[in-house]
Amino acid sequence: MTAEYIKSVVKTVPDYPKPGILFRDVTSVLEDHKAFSSCISLLLERYQGMGFNKIAGTEARGFLFGAPLAIEMGVGFVPVRKPNKLPREVVSESYELEYGTDTLEIHKDAIQPGDKVLLIDDLLATGGTIAASAALIRRLGGEISHAGFIINLPDLGGREKLTEIGVESFSLCEFEGE
Amino acid sequence: MTAEYIKSVVKTVPDYPKPGILFRDVTSVLEDHKAFSSCISLLLERYQGMGFNKIAGTEARGFLFGAPLAIEMGVGFVPVRKPNKLPREVVSESYELEYGTDTLEIHKDAIQPGDKVLLIDDLLATGGTIAASAALIRRLGGEISHAGFIINLPDLGGREKLTEIGVESFSLCEFEGE
Repeated sequence: MTAEYIKSVVKTVPDYPKPGILFRDVTSVLEDHKAFSSCISLLLERYQGMGFNKIAGTEARGFLFGAPLAIEMGVGFVPVRKPNKLPREVVSESYELEYGTDTLEIHKDAIQPGDKVLLIDDLLATGGTIAASAALIRRLGGEISHAGFIINLPDLGGREKLTEIGVESFSLCEFEGE
Repeated sequence: MTAEYIKSVVKTVPDYPKPGILFRDVTSVLEDHKAFSSCISLLLERYQGMGFNKIAGTEARGFLFGAPLAIEMGVGFVPVRKPNKLPREVVSESYELEYGTDTLEIHKDAIQPGDKVLLIDDLLATGGTIAASAALIRRLGGEISHAGFIINLPDLGGREKLTEIGVESFSLCEFEGE
Protein backbone atom coordinates (compact mmCIF):
# COMPACT_ATOMS: atom_id res chain seq x y z
CA MET A 1 0.00 0.00 0.00
CA THR A 2 1.18 3.47 -0.83
CA ALA A 3 1.11 6.84 0.85
CA GLU A 4 -1.76 7.79 -1.53
CA TYR A 5 -3.82 4.97 -0.04
CA ILE A 6 -3.06 6.20 3.50
CA LYS A 7 -4.13 9.72 2.51
CA SER A 8 -7.39 8.38 1.06
CA VAL A 9 -8.22 6.71 4.39
CA VAL A 10 -7.77 9.87 6.53
CA LYS A 11 -11.25 11.16 7.38
CA THR A 12 -11.81 14.90 7.34
CA VAL A 13 -14.12 16.30 10.01
CA PRO A 14 -15.36 19.83 9.24
CA ASP A 15 -15.67 22.43 12.01
CA TYR A 16 -13.72 20.42 14.61
CA PRO A 17 -12.58 21.40 17.20
CA LYS A 18 -14.06 24.76 16.18
CA PRO A 19 -15.89 26.36 13.22
CA GLY A 20 -13.80 26.75 10.08
CA ILE A 21 -11.25 24.04 10.93
CA LEU A 22 -10.98 20.92 8.76
CA PHE A 23 -9.76 18.30 11.22
CA ARG A 24 -7.68 15.48 9.67
CA ASP A 25 -8.60 12.41 11.71
CA VAL A 26 -5.85 9.84 11.91
CA THR A 27 -7.95 7.35 13.93
CA SER A 28 -9.49 6.20 10.63
CA VAL A 29 -5.99 5.10 9.56
CA LEU A 30 -5.55 3.01 12.72
CA GLU A 31 -8.86 1.26 12.18
CA ASP A 32 -7.82 0.13 8.67
CA HIS A 33 -5.09 -2.49 9.13
CA LYS A 34 -3.70 -2.06 5.60
CA ALA A 35 -3.32 1.68 6.06
CA PHE A 36 -1.93 1.39 9.61
CA SER A 37 0.67 -1.25 8.75
CA SER A 38 1.68 0.74 5.63
CA CYS A 39 2.39 3.75 7.85
CA ILE A 40 4.78 1.69 9.96
CA SER A 41 6.44 0.04 6.90
CA LEU A 42 6.96 3.37 5.12
CA LEU A 43 8.42 5.03 8.23
CA LEU A 44 10.69 2.01 8.72
CA GLU A 45 11.84 2.21 5.09
CA ARG A 46 12.65 5.91 5.55
CA TYR A 47 14.50 5.66 8.86
CA GLN A 48 16.05 2.18 9.14
CA GLY A 49 19.83 1.97 9.06
CA MET A 50 20.33 5.61 10.07
CA GLY A 51 21.72 4.75 13.49
CA PHE A 52 18.78 5.72 15.72
CA ASN A 53 18.87 3.90 19.04
CA LYS A 54 15.62 5.29 20.50
CA ILE A 55 12.24 6.50 19.29
CA ALA A 56 10.34 9.17 21.21
CA GLY A 57 6.63 9.82 20.72
CA THR A 58 4.39 12.52 22.12
CA GLU A 59 1.20 11.81 24.13
CA ALA A 60 -1.16 10.48 23.01
CA ARG A 61 -1.36 10.00 19.22
CA GLY A 62 2.42 9.88 18.85
CA PHE A 63 2.32 6.69 20.94
CA LEU A 64 0.13 5.00 18.32
CA PHE A 65 2.76 5.23 15.58
CA GLY A 66 6.00 5.57 17.55
CA ALA A 67 5.54 2.42 19.66
CA PRO A 68 4.96 0.03 16.71
CA LEU A 69 7.85 1.63 14.82
CA ALA A 70 10.15 1.09 17.82
CA ILE A 71 9.14 -2.58 17.90
CA GLU A 72 9.84 -2.99 14.16
CA MET A 73 13.09 -1.02 14.27
CA GLY A 74 14.43 -2.94 17.27
CA VAL A 75 14.91 0.05 19.59
CA GLY A 76 13.38 1.30 22.84
CA PHE A 77 10.47 3.74 23.02
CA VAL A 78 10.46 6.91 25.16
CA PRO A 79 7.09 8.53 25.92
CA VAL A 80 6.91 12.35 26.01
CA ARG A 81 3.94 13.09 28.27
CA LYS A 82 1.63 15.77 29.60
CA PRO A 83 2.47 17.01 33.14
CA ASN A 84 2.11 14.70 36.17
CA LYS A 85 1.84 11.48 34.18
CA LEU A 86 5.38 10.13 34.56
CA PRO A 87 6.22 8.69 37.98
CA ARG A 88 10.01 9.15 38.12
CA GLU A 89 12.18 12.29 37.98
CA VAL A 90 11.37 14.39 34.89
CA VAL A 91 12.51 17.44 32.94
CA SER A 92 9.75 19.79 31.72
CA GLU A 93 9.40 22.17 28.80
CA SER A 94 6.59 24.69 28.25
CA TYR A 95 5.59 25.97 24.82
CA GLU A 96 3.10 28.44 23.46
CA LEU A 97 -0.26 27.50 22.01
CA GLU A 98 -2.65 29.78 20.13
CA TYR A 99 -4.14 30.66 23.53
CA GLY A 100 -1.95 30.04 26.59
CA THR A 101 0.82 27.49 27.06
CA ASP A 102 1.23 23.74 27.39
CA THR A 103 3.91 21.64 29.05
CA LEU A 104 5.59 18.34 28.16
CA GLU A 105 7.71 16.07 30.35
CA ILE A 106 10.20 13.26 29.86
CA HIS A 107 11.88 10.91 32.35
CA LYS A 108 15.36 12.21 33.14
CA ASP A 109 16.91 8.74 32.89
CA ALA A 110 15.15 7.87 29.61
CA ILE A 111 17.78 9.64 27.49
CA GLN A 112 21.55 9.19 27.86
CA PRO A 113 24.08 11.62 26.39
CA GLY A 114 24.81 10.65 22.79
CA ASP A 115 21.51 8.83 22.20
CA LYS A 116 20.33 9.26 18.60
CA VAL A 117 16.60 9.78 18.96
CA LEU A 118 13.97 9.77 16.22
CA LEU A 119 10.80 11.76 17.02
CA ILE A 120 7.46 10.41 15.76
CA ASP A 121 4.04 12.08 15.87
CA ASP A 122 0.81 11.70 13.94
CA LEU A 123 0.52 15.21 12.50
CA LEU A 124 2.82 18.18 11.83
CA ALA A 125 0.94 21.49 12.12
CA THR A 126 2.83 24.46 13.61
CA GLY A 127 5.59 22.23 15.01
CA GLY A 128 5.31 23.50 18.60
CA THR A 129 4.92 20.10 20.23
CA ILE A 130 7.83 18.58 18.34
CA ALA A 131 10.08 21.59 19.00
CA ALA A 132 9.36 21.26 22.74
CA SER A 133 10.01 17.50 22.61
CA ALA A 134 13.31 18.08 20.77
CA ALA A 135 14.34 20.67 23.39
CA LEU A 136 13.69 18.19 26.23
CA ILE A 137 15.73 15.45 24.58
CA ARG A 138 18.61 17.83 23.81
CA ARG A 139 18.65 19.07 27.42
CA LEU A 140 19.35 15.48 28.44
CA GLY A 141 22.20 15.17 25.90
CA GLY A 142 20.29 13.29 23.21
CA GLU A 143 20.71 14.08 19.51
CA ILE A 144 17.60 14.95 17.49
CA SER A 145 17.93 15.53 13.77
CA HIS A 146 14.80 13.90 12.31
CA ALA A 147 11.06 13.81 12.99
CA GLY A 148 8.55 11.65 11.12
CA PHE A 149 4.79 12.17 10.74
CA ILE A 150 1.83 10.54 9.07
CA ILE A 151 0.29 13.88 8.00
CA ASN A 152 1.80 17.31 7.30
CA LEU A 153 -0.26 20.50 7.00
CA PRO A 154 2.33 22.52 5.06
CA ASP A 155 0.43 25.83 5.21
CA LEU A 156 0.95 25.96 8.99
CA GLY A 157 4.73 26.22 8.67
CA GLY A 158 5.80 23.34 10.89
CA ARG A 159 8.44 22.05 8.48
CA GLU A 160 10.18 25.46 8.35
CA LYS A 161 9.99 25.88 12.12
CA LEU A 162 11.64 22.49 12.61
CA THR A 163 14.31 23.23 9.98
CA GLU A 164 15.23 26.35 11.96
CA ILE A 165 16.00 24.22 15.02
CA GLY A 166 17.95 21.63 13.00
CA VAL A 167 15.24 18.97 12.72
CA GLU A 168 14.47 17.55 9.27
CA SER A 169 10.84 16.49 8.93
CA PHE A 170 9.27 13.81 6.76
CA SER A 171 5.58 12.97 6.34
CA LEU A 172 3.67 10.28 4.49
CA CYS A 173 1.00 12.65 3.16
CA GLU A 174 0.09 16.33 3.06
CA PHE A 175 -3.13 18.32 3.09
CA GLU A 176 -2.79 21.81 1.67
CA GLY A 177 -5.08 24.82 2.00
CA GLU A 178 -5.70 24.55 5.76
CA MET B 1 12.86 -13.26 26.71
CA THR B 2 10.41 -14.48 29.29
CA ALA B 3 7.71 -12.90 31.40
CA GLU B 4 10.17 -13.08 34.35
CA TYR B 5 12.52 -10.80 32.45
CA ILE B 6 9.70 -8.33 31.75
CA LYS B 7 8.80 -8.31 35.45
CA SER B 8 12.43 -7.65 36.40
CA VAL B 9 12.45 -4.55 34.14
CA VAL B 10 9.34 -2.92 35.69
CA LYS B 11 10.53 -0.12 37.97
CA THR B 12 8.73 0.37 41.27
CA VAL B 13 8.26 3.96 42.42
CA PRO B 14 7.37 4.24 46.12
CA ASP B 15 4.78 6.80 47.32
CA TYR B 16 3.50 7.66 43.81
CA PRO B 17 1.00 9.12 43.11
CA LYS B 18 0.45 9.34 46.90
CA PRO B 19 2.08 8.11 50.12
CA GLY B 20 1.87 4.37 50.69
CA ILE B 21 1.36 3.42 47.03
CA LEU B 22 4.00 1.35 45.21
CA PHE B 23 3.63 2.49 41.60
CA ARG B 24 4.57 -0.13 38.98
CA ASP B 25 6.07 1.88 36.14
CA VAL B 26 5.64 0.29 32.74
CA THR B 27 7.61 3.01 30.89
CA SER B 28 10.81 1.21 31.92
CA VAL B 29 9.58 -1.78 29.89
CA LEU B 30 9.09 0.40 26.79
CA GLU B 31 12.59 1.81 27.07
CA ASP B 32 14.13 -1.70 27.03
CA HIS B 33 13.64 -3.06 23.51
CA LYS B 34 14.04 -6.70 24.57
CA ALA B 35 11.38 -6.35 27.24
CA PHE B 36 9.01 -4.33 25.03
CA SER B 37 9.20 -6.69 22.06
CA SER B 38 8.77 -9.68 24.40
CA CYS B 39 5.51 -8.14 25.66
CA ILE B 40 4.17 -7.98 22.12
CA SER B 41 5.41 -11.50 21.21
CA LEU B 42 3.90 -13.06 24.34
CA LEU B 43 0.54 -11.33 23.85
CA LEU B 44 0.58 -12.43 20.19
CA GLU B 45 1.32 -16.02 21.24
CA ARG B 46 -1.61 -15.93 23.67
CA TYR B 47 -4.20 -14.36 21.36
CA GLN B 48 -3.32 -15.22 17.76
CA GLY B 49 -5.69 -17.53 15.92
CA MET B 50 -8.63 -16.80 18.25
CA GLY B 51 -10.60 -14.91 15.61
CA PHE B 52 -10.19 -11.35 16.87
CA ASN B 53 -10.69 -8.79 14.09
CA LYS B 54 -9.97 -5.63 16.12
CA ILE B 55 -7.88 -4.57 19.09
CA ALA B 56 -9.04 -1.76 21.37
CA GLY B 57 -6.70 0.07 23.75
CA THR B 58 -7.41 2.65 26.40
CA GLU B 59 -5.77 6.09 26.48
CA ALA B 60 -2.90 6.52 26.90
CA ARG B 61 -0.77 3.55 28.05
CA GLY B 62 -3.08 1.03 26.40
CA PHE B 63 -2.06 2.61 23.06
CA LEU B 64 1.58 1.69 23.69
CA PHE B 65 0.91 -2.06 23.75
CA GLY B 66 -2.36 -2.35 21.81
CA ALA B 67 -1.13 -0.54 18.67
CA PRO B 68 1.99 -2.72 18.13
CA LEU B 69 -0.05 -5.86 18.84
CA ALA B 70 -2.64 -4.81 16.21
CA ILE B 71 0.19 -4.35 13.67
CA GLU B 72 1.63 -7.81 14.47
CA MET B 73 -1.76 -9.53 14.54
CA GLY B 74 -2.88 -7.99 11.25
CA VAL B 75 -6.01 -6.24 12.56
CA GLY B 76 -7.17 -2.64 13.02
CA PHE B 77 -6.75 -0.66 16.23
CA VAL B 78 -9.56 1.23 17.98
CA PRO B 79 -8.59 3.90 20.52
CA VAL B 80 -10.76 4.31 23.64
CA ARG B 81 -10.21 7.91 24.72
CA LYS B 82 -10.86 10.50 27.42
CA PRO B 83 -13.74 12.93 26.68
CA ASN B 84 -13.50 15.46 23.83
CA LYS B 85 -10.52 13.84 22.11
CA LEU B 86 -12.28 11.98 19.28
CA PRO B 87 -13.54 14.17 16.41
CA ARG B 88 -16.41 12.08 15.04
CA GLU B 89 -19.65 10.85 16.66
CA VAL B 90 -18.95 8.95 19.89
CA VAL B 91 -20.62 6.88 22.57
CA SER B 92 -19.60 7.62 26.18
CA GLU B 93 -19.47 5.63 29.39
CA SER B 94 -18.80 6.95 32.88
CA TYR B 95 -17.34 4.86 35.67
CA GLU B 96 -16.49 5.34 39.33
CA LEU B 97 -13.04 6.09 40.65
CA GLU B 98 -11.93 6.10 44.27
CA TYR B 99 -12.96 9.78 44.35
CA GLY B 100 -15.45 10.95 41.71
CA THR B 101 -16.02 9.55 38.22
CA ASP B 102 -14.26 9.37 34.89
CA THR B 103 -15.59 9.02 31.33
CA LEU B 104 -14.38 7.13 28.26
CA GLU B 105 -15.45 7.54 24.63
CA ILE B 106 -15.23 5.52 21.43
CA HIS B 107 -16.12 6.41 17.83
CA LYS B 108 -19.57 5.09 17.01
CA ASP B 109 -18.45 3.78 13.60
CA ALA B 110 -15.28 2.13 14.94
CA ILE B 111 -17.12 -1.04 15.99
CA GLN B 112 -19.55 -2.98 13.78
CA PRO B 113 -22.03 -5.54 15.18
CA GLY B 114 -20.31 -8.92 15.41
CA ASP B 115 -16.78 -7.55 15.67
CA LYS B 116 -14.64 -9.73 17.93
CA VAL B 117 -12.59 -7.22 19.89
CA LEU B 118 -9.57 -7.87 22.11
CA LEU B 119 -8.97 -5.28 24.84
CA ILE B 120 -5.36 -4.40 25.74
CA ASP B 121 -4.09 -2.22 28.57
CA ASP B 122 -0.84 -1.89 30.46
CA LEU B 123 -2.06 -2.72 33.97
CA LEU B 124 -5.04 -4.42 35.59
CA ALA B 125 -5.86 -2.92 39.00
CA THR B 126 -9.56 -2.67 39.99
CA GLY B 127 -10.72 -3.27 36.41
CA GLY B 128 -12.91 -0.14 36.19
CA THR B 129 -11.37 1.22 33.00
CA ILE B 130 -11.59 -2.09 31.19
CA ALA B 131 -15.17 -2.73 32.36
CA ALA B 132 -16.18 0.70 30.98
CA SER B 133 -14.34 0.01 27.69
CA ALA B 134 -16.07 -3.38 27.38
CA ALA B 135 -19.47 -1.72 28.02
CA LEU B 136 -18.84 0.81 25.22
CA ILE B 137 -17.86 -1.88 22.71
CA ARG B 138 -20.85 -4.06 23.64
CA ARG B 139 -23.24 -1.11 23.24
CA LEU B 140 -22.05 -0.89 19.62
CA GLY B 141 -22.64 -4.62 19.07
CA GLY B 142 -19.04 -5.76 19.44
CA GLU B 143 -18.11 -8.96 21.30
CA ILE B 144 -15.63 -8.73 24.17
CA SER B 145 -14.52 -11.90 25.90
CA HIS B 146 -10.80 -11.31 26.56
CA ALA B 147 -8.54 -8.57 27.91
CA GLY B 148 -4.73 -8.71 28.01
CA PHE B 149 -2.35 -6.79 30.28
CA ILE B 150 1.35 -6.49 30.93
CA ILE B 151 0.91 -6.26 34.72
CA ASN B 152 -1.81 -7.53 37.08
CA LEU B 153 -2.16 -6.38 40.70
CA PRO B 154 -4.21 -9.37 41.91
CA ASP B 155 -4.95 -7.96 45.37
CA LEU B 156 -7.09 -5.20 43.82
CA GLY B 157 -9.64 -7.68 42.44
CA GLY B 158 -9.66 -6.67 38.78
CA ARG B 159 -9.59 -10.23 37.47
CA GLU B 160 -12.70 -11.17 39.50
CA LYS B 161 -14.53 -8.00 38.47
CA LEU B 162 -13.87 -8.75 34.80
CA THR B 163 -14.90 -12.41 35.20
CA GLU B 164 -18.26 -11.17 36.56
CA ILE B 165 -18.90 -9.29 33.30
CA GLY B 166 -17.77 -12.19 31.11
CA VAL B 167 -14.25 -10.97 30.29
CA GLU B 168 -11.34 -13.39 30.81
CA SER B 169 -8.13 -11.58 31.72
CA PHE B 170 -4.51 -12.55 31.12
CA SER B 171 -1.36 -10.76 32.24
CA LEU B 172 2.35 -11.26 31.64
CA CYS B 173 3.35 -10.64 35.26
CA GLU B 174 1.84 -10.00 38.68
CA PHE B 175 2.81 -7.98 41.73
CA GLU B 176 1.17 -9.15 44.94
CA GLY B 177 0.79 -7.41 48.27
CA GLU B 178 -0.34 -4.01 46.94
